[in-house]
Amino acid sequence: MEVGAELLWNAVKPLILPAAVQVVKSIQRHRRKIFLRVLQMKKPLPWDNKILLVELLQPNKSDALSYLDSDFDAPDRYARAVVRFGATLEPYIQEYQVGPLPVANRSTALAPLDHIYNKGKGYQRIYDLDSEELAIFLYGIGASIADITQRLLNGTATGSENDTLAGASSTPLIFEDDKVFQWTQIYGLSAGACLDDYLFPSGLMFKTDITGRDPAKWSVVAWQYNGIFYNSEGAFRSAINSSGFSVAGIGVDGDWACTDRSGDPLPHDELNPPVPVQPDGARFAVDEHEKYVEWMDFTFYLSFSKDLGMHLHDITYKGERIVYEVGLQEALAHYASASDPFFASNAYLDSEYGIGQLTFQLVSGFDCPAYATYLNTSYYTGESTHIHPSSICLFEHDTGYPIQRHTTPLYVSVTKNIAFIVRSSATVGNYDYMFDYEFYLDGSIHITVRASGYIESSFWASNQGGEDGFHIHDHLAGSMHDHVINYKLDLDVAGTANSVVRSALIPTTQVYPWSNGKPINQMKFERTFLASEDEGKLNWDANNAVMYSVVNKDAVNPYATGNRNYLVIENSTILGNSVNWATHHLYAVQHKDSEPKSAYPYNGFDPNAPVVDFNKFFDGDSLDQEDIVLYFNLGMHHIPDTSDLPNTVFTSAQSSIVLAPQNYLLGDPSRATIHQTRINFINGTVTNALTFGAKQPTCAVDLSVTAPDLKSFVGEVYFSKYPNHPDAQMIGNPGDGALAGLV
Amino acid sequence: MEVGAELLWNAVKPLILPAAVQVVKSIQRHRRKIFLRVLQMKKPLPWDNKILLVELLQPNKSDALSYLDSDFDAPDRYARAVVRFGATLEPYIQEYQVGPLPVANRSTALAPLDHIYNKGKGYQRIYDLDSEELAIFLYGIGASIADITQRLLNGTATGSENDTLAGASSTPLIFEDDKVFQWTQIYGLSAGACLDDYLFPSGLMFKTDITGRDPAKWSVVAWQYNGIFYNSEGAFRSAINSSGFSVAGIGVDGDWACTDRSGDPLPHDELNPPVPVQPDGARFAVDEHEKYVEWMDFTFYLSFSKDLGMHLHDITYKGERIVYEVGLQEALAHYASASDPFFASNAYLDSEYGIGQLTFQLVSGFDCPAYATYLNTSYYTGESTHIHPSSICLFEHDTGYPIQRHTTPLYVSVTKNIAFIVRSSATVGNYDYMFDYEFYLDGSIHITVRASGYIESSFWASNQGGEDGFHIHDHLAGSMHDHVINYKLDLDVAGTANSVVRSALIPTTQVYPWSNGKPINQMKFERTFLASEDEGKLNWDANNAVMYSVVNKDAVNPYATGNRNYLVIENSTILGNSVNWATHHLYAVQHKDSEPKSAYPYNGFDPNAPVVDFNKFFDGDSLDQEDIVLYFNLGMHHIPDTSDLPNTVFTSAQSSIVLAPQNYLLGDPSRATIHQTRINFINGTVTNALTFGAKQPTCAVDLSVTAPDLKSFVGEVYFSKYPNHPDAQMIGNPGDGALAGLV
Repeated sequence: MEVGAELLWNAVKPLILPAAVQVVKSIQRHRRKIFLRVLQMKKPLPWDNKILLVELLQPNKSDALSYLDSDFDAPDRYARAVVRFGATLEPYIQEYQVGPLPVANRSTALAPLDHIYNKGKGYQRIYDLDSEELAIFLYGIGASIADITQRLLNGTATGSENDTLAGASSTPLIFEDDKVFQWTQIYGLSAGACLDDYLFPSGLMFKTDITGRDPAKWSVVAWQYNGIFYNSEGAFRSAINSSGFSVAGIGVDGDWACTDRSGDPLPHDELNPPVPVQPDGARFAVDEHEKYVEWMDFTFYLSFSKDLGMHLHDITYKGERIVYEVGLQEALAHYASASDPFFASNAYLDSEYGIGQLTFQLVSGFDCPAYATYLNTSYYTGESTHIHPSSICLFEHDTGYPIQRHTTPLYVSVTKNIAFIVRSSATVGNYDYMFDYEFYLDGSIHITVRASGYIESSFWASNQGGEDGFHIHDHLAGSMHDHVINYKLDLDVAGTANSVVRSALIPTTQVYPWSNGKPINQMKFERTFLASEDEGKLNWDANNAVMYSVVNKDAVNPYATGNRNYLVIENSTILGNSVNWATHHLYAVQHKDSEPKSAYPYNGFDPNAPVVDFNKFFDGDSLDQEDIVLYFNLGMHHIPDTSDLPNTVFTSAQSSIVLAPQNYLLGDPSRATIHQTRINFINGTVTNALTFGAKQPTCAVDLSVTAPDLKSFVGEVYFSKYPNHPDAQMIGNPGDGALAGLV
Repeated sequence: MEVGAELLWNAVKPLILPAAVQVVKSIQRHRRKIFLRVLQMKKPLPWDNKILLVELLQPNKSDALSYLDSDFDAPDRYARAVVRFGATLEPYIQEYQVGPLPVANRSTALAPLDHIYNKGKGYQRIYDLDSEELAIFLYGIGASIADITQRLLNGTATGSENDTLAGASSTPLIFEDDKVFQWTQIYGLSAGACLDDYLFPSGLMFKTDITGRDPAKWSVVAWQYNGIFYNSEGAFRSAINSSGFSVAGIGVDGDWACTDRSGDPLPHDELNPPVPVQPDGARFAVDEHEKYVEWMDFTFYLSFSKDLGMHLHDITYKGERIVYEVGLQEALAHYASASDPFFASNAYLDSEYGIGQLTFQLVSGFDCPAYATYLNTSYYTGESTHIHPSSICLFEHDTGYPIQRHTTPLYVSVTKNIAFIVRSSATVGNYDYMFDYEFYLDGSIHITVRASGYIESSFWASNQGGEDGFHIHDHLAGSMHDHVINYKLDLDVAGTANSVVRSALIPTTQVYPWSNGKPINQMKFERTFLASEDEGKLNWDANNAVMYSVVNKDAVNPYATGNRNYLVIENSTILGNSVNWATHHLYAVQHKDSEPKSAYPYNGFDPNAPVVDFNKFFDGDSLDQEDIVLYFNLGMHHIPDTSDLPNTVFTSAQSSIVLAPQNYLLGDPSRATIHQTRINFINGTVTNALTFGAKQPTCAVDLSVTAPDLKSFVGEVYFSKYPNHPDAQMIGNPGDGALAGLV
């Protein structure tokens, strides 16, 4: 978004007068709204308008293919501008397109961006824009029950600097009978060095009616404490003052809640563990300006967006495009509870918070090897361009097991398994996702998501059974939730005329010509083509005995397979039609330029009237030799236990899909690498050991090159387009050469 | 088996007179019986008896626990001797126990070993012992159709040195109407440098009746060529001589079938890829004599057997036993075909061939890092002790992704994910299994099996549809098959009084006290205990929303979870009751000393009368606070495609289960490692970077230490107990110090 950005600003600026003025604080970028911190915002002007985003609009695939594969000109480029309108009784978001770019062009126009949203318009209502008024309202409640919080929790949540408690509200809003509600729970604030607020729910919560923009009309409608529901403050106070009432308590901060090293030292852990080194330098090429990458027989382009982070485009293998686009569509974390209305009402659609916006710097030597290539990312929101240095890494990795081996009586053959990994990590409040695209010498691409960071935990009530999760610490329950991570995978196999084959192994009992008249129990291999989108919603088989392949009937075919999760919850009350992409493992639809994405970042603002309703993609279009697009879900069902304290570990929370060539080449392409050996032997004596030209490095390698410079960590650089703008902030030095190569 | 081995020999020797005399040729250890090579055997005396195995018999768990956990003496040890009786019209295998050891002890007795086999006796009939007579018979058939093989396949399979064809027979034997049959297919012999015979099936096959031990009564009963069945040689010959008959051809050997490097060089592949180095040496301890291993907070013992390879025993974590025993029970490869009677009759139970016997030397730097610790393995069969040098490796590995990370507005915390891996690889004919036990800092153990090596492929007949697999090369089909790999996992959680919990996430619609009278669609967490073995056969949930935990109701609990395959085929005609362990993903049974293993290596000799029938384990025993034993299956459904040429790659054929602590500790134990960092920062400036005492290596490392000495490959050392014995062979030097530390 460099070309004509200033002119673009001039085009969009009138939309957002009076000038937008919201400071982006780190904590605000996190999805949990600890309102103590919301109050620290500099300019609470919710009645202003604001540019949420300006970025390049992805061109229609039809236009892009005309350019890439034929002699047509490059398609006109447009900007996508997302504007939040606050100066109205019914605040909303409207999407715009501005173009063609550059804006200097006289034909440039500003128009609503509607055609890619199947609601019919790029428009979304906002029902809780007045976050500052809401904080004041909620603190007022906190103050009005200061006697209660003091007695039950030994603290207050009044908005004062002396508070040891704060509140957080459930997401999304609750829509009932034309009114808007939410639950707010009191939390203990972390007392130590760690920002571990997520671990101190109090079990004290209240439901508020926050319909409309007039705070005077807002009210508290219900209370809950220690697992018991009260339909009025009076009922709650009278219970507190009754004789049998017991104070449940709240968790106490400590080392157990902090990520820092703790516990008995591990045997021999004072020694350094194995570390990978890269003796000959990188074996891949990155064009930072073109965002173009080459590794072995793969090439691809990277893009980056505030909403969805890193996508890969135009992946070619041995010179042929196999993937037009692959990337995240949405990340859902859906909680549930019988006893806790806060967690029963809690579900996050994380693209709202901006997967790209929350893709922070990676720690060299820990998140990725020190020898990795690091790229910066950037996005534009409010009046600022934000740069996250070193937030994508690319590196080769020795997986620790061979890709191929075979022992014979006369020789043994073994081949190293070197993978090429492209990685980013997004911290969405409590959780850290790690997104990997792994490329292998066998032509396969593995797509993996992992989760770490803090669990968002609930209060363990005295009357609680195990149906909501485990009791994992004093007063603490691991609240169960489902992670469903939705991806788009637009495969193009020998062109766009593709079909989807369902291949199944099926038990069978049959009499055969050769079976001597006897029935034989065995299995058969059955292949059927999906006719249309009516058959396009698919689940992985319980015994993994079904695979799906995208084929060109006239040519050859890679396939996608895998086995991961969809959402357990059916027809989620709180998310309604916003998560119709979360009901199955895999989907096949026909590509349409009007259906570029399965989700929309602000769907959760009005869950039953989503801007993109994925169900509408399934309108019976043919899947026979058409441009097929797959969507699939990764994820984990998470019932946190003590192992999640203080953080969930990636080893227990990961999910993958494998995209692999099937009958695509004539043989295994990994045979091409020289990093294999064949040792010939006779009766225990090696006659010769073939190394195919590979020369084992024998020189000294300076391990200080494996030492990351942890002091070089920057975190984020952001700067305003207009330094004199009231929102202007400048952190870091945008002119620094280290920041070249923005994605 | 060192103590008293000679005396043991004297005890067992009378059983096997006349002296056993079968030379173990490498090729014979492979399961495919190319009969050309069988004829090369030195001493074809099937009417002799033979010691198949002598090894230490595993003590009863009850006795072992008395010794380990109480003050009882070590249990008496016994040898298990497996003897094949050939000098009878009905040859058979009988299991013996000899002990107590040492044999010098006057109370030592030889007795049938029956009590651990639920057939009631350790006895198995053999119906095809006369392999040499069979080879002569089959070559006779080859000679009698030399005119046909010459015309159809341009070669002969007559037993002559000039043959370019050979035969291989299906496994197991076919039992029909009190008779014994098998199919034999003609194969092309590899012409090049690779032993790739598996890739040249001819589609010419015949069925023989080989009932009894009198070759004069054997006969050919049917023929098949190019997908067409003929019920007599006459019918076949008359078809060949009819006018419309077409010759199908056979595959031609070439680079495509060889594992050596081939294809265009890959970009930058002339450079060395990343390689792991171990700057401070090993961080684990191995006592080779006691076969005892310590890594971080884990300890365990290794054992090794000819039938089943490596097992792990008495795994402790933080000083408490969590696993009494874990190890392979059986590895099934079950083929299927509608058109090809050879492959429709083909299924391997690989412990028959000896997973341990086939666990060969690992290639340093390729199978495992050059810095790994390597152990030798050994077994005793015939009259020889066999030693496989460096056939187990143990090493730490940087997995390439962190185990934990979290970014906050004030700091970022990331921890390295270092795993400890114990690995062996068994080559069972065409296939190479790689067996890994991986230990993690989060207290979890991952058990993985991978498959590489050659596929056993079938002939692509002219009339063939796709129902048997893909057409993958000239005249070549990738024959579909299921791999089911069965493991025993004897968890002991805070003692042996354990129960099994089924924990499920279930969609639910309910009205709650707090839901304002409205039904809410969400999910609930439901935990139920398995009452008895009647509920002990389990499948992983299609959406992974169910997990199983082994708990001590009075204490704490790790759990096992995972998601892999069971056999598609139901009630396999060819394997009958031998594979009743292959019908589900997971099984829970009560431990009995009489049920130590789910399978028996020679079950396949008489599939409907197995020596161990796993179904009999399920006799209604309680699973409530009893000593629970789990059995689970890993595996892959394999429909080979061109990617499997020349070899299947490990990246596409792997399967894992994760055994992880659940509420077992108070928090994540990986917090104890110093190999983590916390970088504190304010507005893009690092204030400090904590490294918790870890010192980054900065010295030079000599990469020549990462260079394996490929010339040191030995393959196998074996030597006879009695050098003057007719079977005596000596390869390598058993006195070599490098062979210390036999497992």
